[in-house]
Amino acid sequence: MARTGRRPGNQDTREAILASARDAFAERGYDGASIRNIATSAGVDPALVHHYFGTKNQLFIDAMQFPLDPAVLLPQVAAAGLDGFGERLMRTMLAVWDSKAGGPAAAFIRSAVSNETMARLLREFVIQRILRRMSKELPIDPAEAPWRLMMVASQVAGLIMVRYIIKIEPMASAPPETVVALFAPTIQRYITDPLSALI
Amino acid sequence: MARTGRRPGNQDTREAILASARDAFAERGYDGASIRNIATSAGVDPALVHHYFGTKNQLFIDAMQFPLDPAVLLPQVAAAGLDGFGERLMRTMLAVWDSKAGGPAAAFIRSAVSNETMARLLREFVIQRILRRMSKELPIDPAEAPWRLMMVASQVAGLIMVRYIIKIEPMASAPPETVVALFAPTIQRYITDPLSALI
Repeated sequence: MARTGRRPGNQDTREAILASARDAFAERGYDGASIRNIATSAGVDPALVHHYFGTKNQLFIDAMQFPLDPAVLLPQVAAAGLDGFGERLMRTMLAVWDSKAGGPAAAFIRSAVSNETMARLLREFVIQRILRRMSKELPIDPAEAPWRLMMVASQVAGLIMVRYIIKIEPMASAPPETVVALFAPTIQRYITDPLSALI
Repeated sequence: MARTGRRPGNQDTREAILASARDAFAERGYDGASIRNIATSAGVDPALVHHYFGTKNQLFIDAMQFPLDPAVLLPQVAAAGLDGFGERLMRTMLAVWDSKAGGPAAAFIRSAVSNETMARLLREFVIQRILRRMSKELPIDPAEAPWRLMMVASQVAGLIMVRYIIKIEPMASAPPETVVALFAPTIQRYITDPLSALI
């Protein structure tokens, strides 16, 4: 069963750490869970957790079986600036969801929607790992950033629902370029249109 | 247990019909399920199903425990025309989801997202009962209508996810008027902005 080619002992240790991490994140949330506690429940030294997984963020990604890390991808999209942000975000999002990473991502969304513990994890992950980093990268008013980013998140989340989860045509089978053309202007407006009179 | 005030015998018959209906819709989908089959599995005459529930649509609404019927509400929003459609749709959607109807609606979305059978039902219900009726009411190009309505659906679905299911601030607690102001222009553009070059 050693499909990664690691020796079985190491594989067992990794799996034990991942299982403890899933329990800890589910029980205590992202912020409440610590590498130290996770190591203790897995019966290993914290240094070994760092050795296998690096940071708590990476351990979370691996425990949740995300094939790509949105907390890395999305701040990169933001770091390229306001010009063309909507189009870049749409392209990145479609590239990930149309790839083989789409299956595990859909599974995570399904569990977050049907389970309050997973919803809390998704909420914390979206807020702590993605939105805060994106607002640091984007040159927008910090008071408006949470509103703007949640407007973007709502459009992206709904597109994910329609195209990948509930799968309603014509969105489910539309070519990625069409989907980018349809939604990029909305994302761009949510980031750059005047907002202060509304909130 | 006769909380509706009906005699227990009638209540049992109603419940038996609703249970058969849920099974039939789950097994055969909305289109495949028939009043006749549902009556047969419940051991009653089809006339009795019509007597209690009227149409198949109403039986579906009752079986799924929707407190309000989106297949009635949403075509009304469309029938008032293109002017102000975005704002009317947002107000109707927020009025329903912020009311006590929001709980059962969220439960239905949760089950549709986590269960393929329920996803199929939601898909069929959205397409057959809501989108087709709305496209008849709205004076828009029939070739563009499915695209426009699924763009609207994607923004509304994502707002539901962020505000009512995952509950991320500032959207989760924003006053309804603020949410209307933020999203109505997008809904309006999805219905009236030029689209033919994009699809």
